[in-house]
Amino acid sequence: MAANRKLKLGAMIHGVGGGWEDWRHPDALTDASVNLGFYKQQAQIAEAGKLDFAFIADSLFIHANSSPHYLNRFEPFTILSALAAVTSHIGLVATATVSYNEPFTLARQLASLDQISGGRAGWNVVTSWLSGTADNYSRESHPDHATRYRLAQEHIDVVKGLWDSWEDDAFTRNKETGQFFDPSKLHELNHKGEFFSVKGPLNIARSKQGQPVIFQAGNSEDGRNYAARNAEAIFTGFSSFEEARLFYQDIKRRAVQFGRSVDQISVLPGIGPIVGRTQEEADRKYKQKADLVSIEKAIVALGRPFDDYDFSQHDLDAPFPDLGELGVNSQQGGSERIKQLAREENLTLREVALRLATPKGLFVGTPELVADRIQEAFETEASDGFIISEAVPGGLKEFTELVVPILQERGLFRTEYEHDTLRGNLGLQFPINRYSKQRVTN
Amino acid sequence: MAANRKLKLGAMIHGVGGGWEDWRHPDALTDASVNLGFYKQQAQIAEAGKLDFAFIADSLFIHANSSPHYLNRFEPFTILSALAAVTSHIGLVATATVSYNEPFTLARQLASLDQISGGRAGWNVVTSWLSGTADNYSRESHPDHATRYRLAQEHIDVVKGLWDSWEDDAFTRNKETGQFFDPSKLHELNHKGEFFSVKGPLNIARSKQGQPVIFQAGNSEDGRNYAARNAEAIFTGFSSFEEARLFYQDIKRRAVQFGRSVDQISVLPGIGPIVGRTQEEADRKYKQKADLVSIEKAIVALGRPFDDYDFSQHDLDAPFPDLGELGVNSQQGGSERIKQLAREENLTLREVALRLATPKGLFVGTPELVADRIQEAFETEASDGFIISEAVPGGLKEFTELVVPILQERGLFRTEYEHDTLRGNLGLQFPINRYSKQRVTN
Repeated sequence: MAANRKLKLGAMIHGVGGGWEDWRHPDALTDASVNLGFYKQQAQIAEAGKLDFAFIADSLFIHANSSPHYLNRFEPFTILSALAAVTSHIGLVATATVSYNEPFTLARQLASLDQISGGRAGWNVVTSWLSGTADNYSRESHPDHATRYRLAQEHIDVVKGLWDSWEDDAFTRNKETGQFFDPSKLHELNHKGEFFSVKGPLNIARSKQGQPVIFQAGNSEDGRNYAARNAEAIFTGFSSFEEARLFYQDIKRRAVQFGRSVDQISVLPGIGPIVGRTQEEADRKYKQKADLVSIEKAIVALGRPFDDYDFSQHDLDAPFPDLGELGVNSQQGGSERIKQLAREENLTLREVALRLATPKGLFVGTPELVADRIQEAFETEASDGFIISEAVPGGLKEFTELVVPILQERGLFRTEYEHDTLRGNLGLQFPINRYSKQRVTN
Repeated sequence: MAANRKLKLGAMIHGVGGGWEDWRHPDALTDASVNLGFYKQQAQIAEAGKLDFAFIADSLFIHANSSPHYLNRFEPFTILSALAAVTSHIGLVATATVSYNEPFTLARQLASLDQISGGRAGWNVVTSWLSGTADNYSRESHPDHATRYRLAQEHIDVVKGLWDSWEDDAFTRNKETGQFFDPSKLHELNHKGEFFSVKGPLNIARSKQGQPVIFQAGNSEDGRNYAARNAEAIFTGFSSFEEARLFYQDIKRRAVQFGRSVDQISVLPGIGPIVGRTQEEADRKYKQKADLVSIEKAIVALGRPFDDYDFSQHDLDAPFPDLGELGVNSQQGGSERIKQLAREENLTLREVALRLATPKGLFVGTPELVADRIQEAFETEASDGFIISEAVPGGLKEFTELVVPILQERGLFRTEYEHDTLRGNLGLQFPINRYSKQRVTN
């Protein structure tokens, strides 16, 4: 284990919630996904808890059967920029797809968020798995899985290249001499590749953290390699300690193969802790949430990682259907896990749907139990920390007020921010501008 | 003149300034274009002055000879979202091009800014005139002027169609019945046109102002028709009362031809007032600004509306060169005005360049003089108001503290915001959702 390894914690701000029926909870704010006050409050709660970052998920295609949160929600760059103005230390991570965004625009909006926030931006790189997205973007078809990852590599290379357009000391701004910038420190990218042709330079400079932090959530073979090569933090699932440790080892091994240091890539599973004064109280809270979900909604939700496949055509109480290659070209990692779960535990379609609609997970219990599990995961290298989703209304506040202090008392988590950049707080190296590097080594 | 006609005032927030050497002014903040504190201060000054909106210009292509403000500045949606979080009533107008942005993404970011700000967003529609932009966006060439305007019409039709995806009362959010929205009030666009194919629906609802307010700045024949057909506010120049009145009449006449009401389209020239306690003090301030500009910089700046044409190859003191068709395919309106100025006043290249590098305009003088001119322009229908650029550091503050109170005393300008939406303050009609309308008329 690295000597200075530090626990990392982020907060997913998810409006009305990730679960289909979360909005029906008695305490839920039903317009949360388009409520600035709610987002501001969540970000400020996370910052008061000294969490590393707030994370905004995203997608670009909806239909009448999409989950409520997807239907009507803020766009990541706009809401995170608003949050930048009302926070001071917490990182701000925007999900944005490479498949339907021009690298110049993406590089610029991320760099602008990074400047506005004083070096607190992160980019969660996704490739989009919903094929319907193509219909919103004048495309004849959605690119296949392998093409998306090939494009994703070229895209991120272009974005990072554009981010280095200006060396850190390029802007001299000398009123006496009239030199606004040193022309030798401005660089065109002149990229010409398979998917993109981008000249540059970008019309915005680097922030004090150098470049936004790269997040990624791929779980397929291509996704893991992409993450190991490019990501500085990986958003994944957490179904068991054993599975998490295997994933953790696999990612770190791949990172080393790409010539990277294991402490420069964090594995951060997403969890939805539910805290109670007693285990029984926590269990009751979980049951109250699970009882909101009907089997009809659970079946629709199950279709999502399979590109919105309609499971209602199958018998609910027969064994989980054989889907063949379905899902391989959409959210490959997620759909494979579902098939595996059904196979290993010999579950019916109903059982799979209800289990996945409201996953209980291992983080339902007293604050001590949740802290113990986080500590165990961290110390046994099942994760480098977690991304906290609010499983029930008030869940983030309870986590920061009841669980975080325990982690702090145990010396596992910071009591004050060490830095005011996301990169600094995550313990990531400052990425030296590629052109400055050349100057040093030549 | 319409009975309820009201003077409108906006503020262009322009970082280090629109003039090439503005940053060298002794009082200039040289990093203003990437300084959140500066943008926040300017927006709050404008709001304290009860101005209708803050306006952010934009472009997507720079090179080593671009004007300082263009080189390194915030991207409009991100900075305006940040400003939304620290203001409450002022409108927030983002410049965004139709030529290099997907309508789905643009519709969504504008709608998100509109929701975040509680109905204060505006969209300044531009088509981009710098052909180098194509090189940053994997395009073989920049579309020609006529194609850009044809595309612009289809683009705005798609964006406005997406904005109406959800009727205003679509989200029922009834925890008892479990109905999150009324499916009959969700609408797919299913657009298939010459340039775009967009299915929809958009994944965000309308704000309380219905749709963001449309701004436009075209001055060519195509540009004027586009503005008259689509715009609710027009950003233009102001070189003389006579010319402004002709433009004003022309736009209103065209608007009527498109079946629109003249009070639903405002003509708002951009001006850079310089205020002094005496005329002499104001003139000194102007001269201090003009003296910052060298002829070399003025010549480079002159090239911009001609797609960055290099004027240094011509004799500075010979008559303004014959440029033929140059400029027709870039910023057609702007370049034609320059040719006309040179021709009418028989100017040399040097004279044209210096005059345009630091246009003095008619708004340099005492607060009373500036107020008089604004009143005259408004009352003689040379404009419906103005967009104020900060010509010298502190200029916006001086305008709001010295000129606005005079306009208020004269009953020309509001003393309190009438509404908390941009549309409301501009006196624009609420755009009834196209699908709700069908329901009413059927």
